[in-house]
Amino acid sequence: MISIAVDAMGGDFGPAITLPACLVFLRGHPDCELVVVGQTHVLVEHALHAQLLASGRCRFVAATEVVTMDDPIEIALRRKKDSSMRVAMAQVRDGHAHAALSAGNTGALMAIARFVLKTMEGIDRPAIATQLPNAVGGATTVLDLGANVDCTAHHLLQFAVMGSALVTAISGNASPSVGLLNIGEEAIKGSEVIKKASELLRSAAASGDLNFVGNVEGNDIFKGTTDIVVCDGFVGNVALKATEGLAAMIGGFIKAEFSRNIFTKFAAIVAYPVLTAFKKRVDHRRYNGAALLGLRGLVFKSHGSADAFAFERALSRAYDAARNGLLDRVRERIAHAAGMLTSVQQEGGSTAESASLTSPAPLDASPKPLSAH
Amino acid sequence: MISIAVDAMGGDFGPAITLPACLVFLRGHPDCELVVVGQTHVLVEHALHAQLLASGRCRFVAATEVVTMDDPIEIALRRKKDSSMRVAMAQVRDGHAHAALSAGNTGALMAIARFVLKTMEGIDRPAIATQLPNAVGGATTVLDLGANVDCTAHHLLQFAVMGSALVTAISGNASPSVGLLNIGEEAIKGSEVIKKASELLRSAAASGDLNFVGNVEGNDIFKGTTDIVVCDGFVGNVALKATEGLAAMIGGFIKAEFSRNIFTKFAAIVAYPVLTAFKKRVDHRRYNGAALLGLRGLVFKSHGSADAFAFERALSRAYDAARNGLLDRVRERIAHAAGMLTSVQQEGGSTAESASLTSPAPLDASPKPLSAH
Repeated sequence: MISIAVDAMGGDFGPAITLPACLVFLRGHPDCELVVVGQTHVLVEHALHAQLLASGRCRFVAATEVVTMDDPIEIALRRKKDSSMRVAMAQVRDGHAHAALSAGNTGALMAIARFVLKTMEGIDRPAIATQLPNAVGGATTVLDLGANVDCTAHHLLQFAVMGSALVTAISGNASPSVGLLNIGEEAIKGSEVIKKASELLRSAAASGDLNFVGNVEGNDIFKGTTDIVVCDGFVGNVALKATEGLAAMIGGFIKAEFSRNIFTKFAAIVAYPVLTAFKKRVDHRRYNGAALLGLRGLVFKSHGSADAFAFERALSRAYDAARNGLLDRVRERIAHAAGMLTSVQQEGGSTAESASLTSPAPLDASPKPLSAH
Repeated sequence: MISIAVDAMGGDFGPAITLPACLVFLRGHPDCELVVVGQTHVLVEHALHAQLLASGRCRFVAATEVVTMDDPIEIALRRKKDSSMRVAMAQVRDGHAHAALSAGNTGALMAIARFVLKTMEGIDRPAIATQLPNAVGGATTVLDLGANVDCTAHHLLQFAVMGSALVTAISGNASPSVGLLNIGEEAIKGSEVIKKASELLRSAAASGDLNFVGNVEGNDIFKGTTDIVVCDGFVGNVALKATEGLAAMIGGFIKAEFSRNIFTKFAAIVAYPVLTAFKKRVDHRRYNGAALLGLRGLVFKSHGSADAFAFERALSRAYDAARNGLLDRVRERIAHAAGMLTSVQQEGGSTAESASLTSPAPLDASPKPLSAH
């Protein structure tokens, strides 16, 4: 039985979308149970509360506070110690759940995850990884998407190792290909960090720790040139948001052109099945659910504006990761690459700045070992 | 009479697309003449050579060499001293043309432009700026797109000043709004460079040198939140390429869905006018023609894979910039902001690394003053 802790209060809509998603998810996953965390007075009043309880595979856990989308990390971490986000994470830490999912504020989620679960040995900074659809019919895993800015070459190497573990766990591909995001022009090729990262990744490939195929450019994400694209969190976040903006604009243009007049509206009716098939194909909701990698427990992040369909997809993603032992796979990959990672650390001293902006230092609580459920 | 020097040999297709574009352009711009630069034996054999000559507003200038798309900067700059790219640029330097346009290799173009034309006083690094369509029906000007990686806050400030001059010259808007590209999450907001740049831009806004409205995210480029979006060349290049990749994927999906079977093909026929209108609206060729800003002469870059339609758009863009005195506007803006730019330089010493990767040091040739034509 796989158990997933759900922050029912997170995101733009809270229980109004998380509870319906939980119900649909439970129906589709008979080997799974959910630990739904939230404010009791809100949850018991929800229409689906009784149905979820009646499923026999849903347990409600009380949390008195909620991290809002605007809460600064400081507030989320130090003031709201009984938030639904944090209690859900504690379920993972204490061995009561295999993974946690929240649609709440990413900065707070990452900070609380680092505080409650701690970072894995050999990893300086956790990363956020998501999958984007590509032209070859699959999905490209991209990381980091904003957890880390000002990454060193060494961090990018760690992202490549963790991303490979994620793809192996989710798709079964034992040796997923890795590309390093760079810019194309010959002479202005990449910053110093990228050049150094490229060297490290080549060494890792030579020693069999990674299937590094070389540098890729922004368009390769959607071409599907490699299974994984590694980048700094700043660059990844901008690329992701820019493509979201373009997709929204294109969607708006299609709608505008088809509703221009009576003839175009007729065309829309005739083309409806095609437009629906197209919409489904590029539906970003299907790809909802980003993994926070490098922590001593599985944490997934849903888009804040997710609807029930999208949130259910994120639940499924967390479930797949837990069932396929993502945590162990990341650990194994890191252990395998440990020699290399350590020698890089000693040689370059590149982890000196590992106390990143997101680090809620000092850390004082120790995580309990993850017990089997 | 506005005069534009054209590198007829550059790009993936050379004269096969540049010459037809020149002919169409001349027909649409009776107050313009072209200086077409290329290998004489190639140009005279082209079917349109006679027609262009017959127009009376086209002069051919010989260059014996061609910079290929793969030529390293070193080769383009030091070996091919009589390349069509360089000769076109020299036309601007010597006052025989108001602007130069090439579809050749960006790295080589930037290096040769810096060498032949030199950088403007007060500007450490030239930038590449382009316009992208946005959801509000206009275009967002984005810079830098890849000329500079590892930018300092001071460079970003210079980009904002130059971008403002460009938009004023092209659209007539005297006070275009400027956004600084950043990432959204509260606590992990931006790198140190971005934070510093944000401060500098706020000071510039306070002193009336810029209309800085604050930080924006990747999706704001296509939302059209601000007229100008300023970013590091690495980030800008990745965002541009990623959106190109997404657009290509979406285009491919639409095509695939409409050609799936006899019914969808029928739908495609009915929807043809709508699809054509949509395609026109998102046609990136209309936005071809990036400006190299910060040089002592106007240089424009066409996409390497441009067709004749796209190359003609780039010619029009160079023409608009020349006619509206872009060079003087950039100079004025820089002069106006000079006090601020200088104080920043002295205070932060942030231009210490201005000898960028692309800098073809040492520079030994002096540019002649731009004479009126």
